Amino acid sequence: MTNSPVEHECVLGVDLGGTRIALGIVDPSGRIIDRLETPSPADDGGRMTEALVDIVSRGRELAEASGSRAVASGLGVAGFIIHDEGFLLESPNIAWVDVPLRKIVAERTGLETFLDNDANAACLGERLAGVAQGVDDFVYLTLGTGIGGGICIGGTVYRGNRGTAAELGHMSIDPSGPECGCGRRGCLEALASGTALERAAAEAAREDPDSLLNRLCDDDPAGITGEIVSRAAEAGDRAALDAFSQIAYYLGLGIVNLIHIFDPEMVVLGGGVSHSGHLLLDEVRSVVRERGIRVLVRDARIELSSLGREAGVVGAGAIAWEGMGRQP
Amino acid sequence: MTNSPVEHECVLGVDLGGTRIALGIVDPSGRIIDRLETPSPADDGGRMTEALVDIVSRGRELAEASGSRAVASGLGVAGFIIHDEGFLLESPNIAWVDVPLRKIVAERTGLETFLDNDANAACLGERLAGVAQGVDDFVYLTLGTGIGGGICIGGTVYRGNRGTAAELGHMSIDPSGPECGCGRRGCLEALASGTALERAAAEAAREDPDSLLNRLCDDDPAGITGEIVSRAAEAGDRAALDAFSQIAYYLGLGIVNLIHIFDPEMVVLGGGVSHSGHLLLDEVRSVVRERGIRVLVRDARIELSSLGREAGVVGAGAIAWEGMGRQP
Repeated sequence: MTNSPVEHECVLGVDLGGTRIALGIVDPSGRIIDRLETPSPADDGGRMTEALVDIVSRGRELAEASGSRAVASGLGVAGFIIHDEGFLLESPNIAWVDVPLRKIVAERTGLETFLDNDANAACLGERLAGVAQGVDDFVYLTLGTGIGGGICIGGTVYRGNRGTAAELGHMSIDPSGPECGCGRRGCLEALASGTALERAAAEAAREDPDSLLNRLCDDDPAGITGEIVSRAAEAGDRAALDAFSQIAYYLGLGIVNLIHIFDPEMVVLGGGVSHSGHLLLDEVRSVVRERGIRVLVRDARIELSSLGREAGVVGAGAIAWEGMGRQP
Repeated sequence: MTNSPVEHECVLGVDLGGTRIALGIVDPSGRIIDRLETPSPADDGGRMTEALVDIVSRGRELAEASGSRAVASGLGVAGFIIHDEGFLLESPNIAWVDVPLRKIVAERTGLETFLDNDANAACLGERLAGVAQGVDDFVYLTLGTGIGGGICIGGTVYRGNRGTAAELGHMSIDPSGPECGCGRRGCLEALASGTALERAAAEAAREDPDSLLNRLCDDDPAGITGEIVSRAAEAGDRAALDAFSQIAYYLGLGIVNLIHIFDPEMVVLGGGVSHSGHLLLDEVRSVVRERGIRVLVRDARIELSSLGREAGVVGAGAIAWEGMGRQP
């Protein structure tokens, strides 16, 4: 019965990370119906591509088995992307350079495919199913190892002239600040990412050997992870809270710039660090109030992502729905 | 013959500055057919409003006398503006606070009226008749006493949620930088405006008393104007060229941020300082090349405004044409 009518349409949202590839079967409202996961052979571009094609094919079968029909796949990946061509220029986490990913996956799987930066994807995901539902103009920041950005204007993701817009993590806010992974100085990413949080925490632990933070890392500040900082901060540890404050300060400065530039209805904070977002949010909001021009910043809301760990997969799904002309 | 057909339609573009109000009769292609000018009673909001109403009324008559019919007026003014309502929140140069300018002028003159920030106006003017004709995605910076910004996305000016977007001069690029007029630190405006150029030049003149720069200001560095810096720099004076270099450096840093954020086809530099733009342009371009992420900045063009001193009036006219639904 190959031509029987299928009631439910879905898309495959694929979140391509440096450690795992996660696929979700995503319905038009952004709900995840089912999921698959596989490790990323990230240091081998060829094998990574095979793993991607394989998971998309399996996702399609899984969708069918659960009574829905996959109409497209959406791929979200950290990196610089020429969106219209579905062409990946380079990625910080995966050994891909100049790869026509969209074309490869579409040809190998026979499925319409769309490719975008993970932060653009998550941005659109927030509009489809997250905290930005119904919000037309907002700015999205994903706070993880690095900082990615997404810009939603008039309800659609703004991608710029070639598709590389919204590299908000590489807005420099302090020319004498620490070096960034991109080789420049004082980028928002170098000052307010998860990596920056760990660095600030390591320093705080060294300065205060009696802190819970230092005890949790067994006197080895270099081994501090975001999770350790969060645990110590949740327990009220001063050193850990100071590290969060430092991040919140720079994040606030960056957000002030973005509000002055975009006059957005909302700024959404997502990504790993935002899972401990309650430790940041009040302070970020007060930095914005204090450091921004009052008439410009007073009406902009600053909110945490409501998608949490699902943001990558839901966002990749949203990219596929958008590609099919179904704007959330 | 009040109902005789009139062949040419025009708009009145009004550039409201702190020292003068300039009005141009602007045709649909952005050409100025005729003009009027009057001093600004800028320190008296009531008189300023009267002067504005008066010049618009006179402009209308002048248009008629020259055989064209004014279909709208466009007002460009430095300040924070709620565009849809035509409401001015505040202006740095004129004693207006919370003035419904659009409504006042429309009611008093009977002419459809549109109001926007002078930088948004100049931005749209560049697209109508300047260097950005045919360019859909570009960023505009006006370099004068302060720095204003305009963002053109998909061929239209992006104004944000309430209409106050594109305050690009108040993007802070150095939290330990000099204080800005807005009370914050290290704004692009505080580092790269005409005022910053004069300050940098005054310092250079003090450090090098034998410089042409110092001689041109009669040993009184505090009295240095932008014009003096330009004259000295044109003559090859090292101190003046250093002042331009310093401005170019910060301008370059700001433009890198804007390119990373917007991925624009072009960045346009206008305003008073840009009249000496050839002294800046090469250096700005090389700072952008050196300081930007290569794959992001390599394709963005950086150009000087081609409207020069007409930018304000042409831009205000463009705002009126845009308001009438005739997007350039």
